[in-house]
Amino acid sequence: MRGPRYNPGMTAVFGHLNPDTDAITAALVYANLLRRQGLDATPYRLGELNFETAFVLREAGVDAPELLTSLPEGSAVALVDHNESAQSLPGLKGLNVTHVVDHHRLGDLETTQPATLRFDPVGCTATILLRLHLEANLPVEPLDARLMLSAVLSDTLHFRSPTTTAADREAVAFLAQVAGVQDVTAYALAMFAAKSDLGDTPASTLLKMDYKVFPFGAQKWGVGVIETTNPAYVFGRQAELLAAMQAEKGVSGLDGLVLSVVDILNETNRTIVTGESEAAVLGEAFAAVTVDHVADLGDRISRKKQIVPTLEAYFAR
Amino acid sequence: MRGPRYNPGMTAVFGHLNPDTDAITAALVYANLLRRQGLDATPYRLGELNFETAFVLREAGVDAPELLTSLPEGSAVALVDHNESAQSLPGLKGLNVTHVVDHHRLGDLETTQPATLRFDPVGCTATILLRLHLEANLPVEPLDARLMLSAVLSDTLHFRSPTTTAADREAVAFLAQVAGVQDVTAYALAMFAAKSDLGDTPASTLLKMDYKVFPFGAQKWGVGVIETTNPAYVFGRQAELLAAMQAEKGVSGLDGLVLSVVDILNETNRTIVTGESEAAVLGEAFAAVTVDHVADLGDRISRKKQIVPTLEAYFAR
Ligand SMILES: [Mn+2]
Ligand SMILES: [Mn+2]
Repeated sequence: MRGPRYNPGMTAVFGHLNPDTDAITAALVYANLLRRQGLDATPYRLGELNFETAFVLREAGVDAPELLTSLPEGSAVALVDHNESAQSLPGLKGLNVTHVVDHHRLGDLETTQPATLRFDPVGCTATILLRLHLEANLPVEPLDARLMLSAVLSDTLHFRSPTTTAADREAVAFLAQVAGVQDVTAYALAMFAAKSDLGDTPASTLLKMDYKVFPFGAQKWGVGVIETTNPAYVFGRQAELLAAMQAEKGVSGLDGLVLSVVDILNETNRTIVTGESEAAVLGEAFAAVTVDHVADLGDRISRKKQIVPTLEAYFAR
Repeated sequence: MRGPRYNPGMTAVFGHLNPDTDAITAALVYANLLRRQGLDATPYRLGELNFETAFVLREAGVDAPELLTSLPEGSAVALVDHNESAQSLPGLKGLNVTHVVDHHRLGDLETTQPATLRFDPVGCTATILLRLHLEANLPVEPLDARLMLSAVLSDTLHFRSPTTTAADREAVAFLAQVAGVQDVTAYALAMFAAKSDLGDTPASTLLKMDYKVFPFGAQKWGVGVIETTNPAYVFGRQAELLAAMQAEKGVSGLDGLVLSVVDILNETNRTIVTGESEAAVLGEAFAAVTVDHVADLGDRISRKKQIVPTLEAYFAR
């Protein structure tokens, strides 16, 4: 961010790399909330929009936030929907983290000064953002309501994910009313259809659409997720995806790389593994059988709640 | 905690080692708030009460929470008024941190699962605890109000500390009313007098009354504070204190050890340094002159806001 619009007094608000709908909308909504509270805050994104998020912004009539690739050392930043440096702007350790709103486990984040941190164990960052509005007695703007509604539906797969809490369900009921979305089920299905319309997207892009790198003990693993209403399409491109995964594993020096293909409507997870070593780990950690590079993880559809904690526990043995 | 009262389903709530008034009262008040919200929470302390805190509890008619020295691995804990492992229960990394309420910078804390974290950059944990009551629409109980009032007065030195925020002042006004404390100034002076009544406390105890260990780059420093309305008494025991400091530095393998004697009423800080190396560091970091093991730090009376950040920046050069 050394373009003409950079303002050294402002706070940059952004979600994680390989942004999903929660990461993008949380940046937009939290930046607006901070501005309404008197802070000079600007939303950014750390990567390209996925098809679902592009659909959400198009339907809402909102422009995507600007792409951010770096900031001068010491810049003030507000993190949403993430807190670990591996999932954030390169050089995060040299930035001044003044705010965080997140629903993931706390990772390697440290702050140089006392900061405003808000973590709640709910299904979506937007559910926390709604609480922040209510606690501050600020009316929720209809556009923000629509963005937050989309995020909760996306992160919870419309309540199918085991990460869903009562607070997320209440948030959806409240936000749908404020946003004027009458048929929430139809809207969620349209979002998921947009997400599943992968068209001629290159395999390397599919892999990185919803992709995070985790330290597991001494190992570094990449864990991608494709949430789709049309898994047959994804497995039709399995050979291409495997080639992209092998390339990524080599280039990024990963110890393991897996790609979970989650069937949103049937709530199943069949995970593509790059090689024998990943198959062996999933076999021991999940008692999963791997056939032709595909491990059957049954109904474990949440990376955050079901995949990553089990792998973490496995490598911590 | 393997005594008869230990309940494996409960959440242990505690403040930092060498507890001050905020650490003790925050454990009591937050445990009560969590209980009112349906959680089985029990307050504990990680060390002996200082004279100020003993006065506060005696005046309030409240028993001190039980001393906690260890917990079984995996136990659920709620941290208040601290987050760094060096200031917490030994073995914190093996415990399950489910809640944190704090107003310090975020240190080396990690959580295994998504947790409830609430950090605000205000002068006292109690100011955040008051917000939690108001946000949850729970009336503040008069006894809790008295404890929180005492904590804000203690942490902000009745608004003399530069860590004081508008929120702390508003909290005191609100809490004094709920607690029925009519003369806040008189109550604060009585608290500070109790704190300054050091009597025949051994020098090794004085050193550890308000004492924290910090990693500064590759070095490990101990930084103690004695806040007193009677600094002459403390300096009258300087030789004893120096001997206790030299012993502690050796026993704990510290690279540096200093003890700030803060004159609460005149808002000055004269810091006892263990040796030449500490004097050299303070000389470079603060341009402080050291005479006879005492460095003049002027009006820098806040360890959190003025002493530790400067030392951190110095060692990060
Ligand atoms: Mn999220
Ligand atoms: Mn405190």
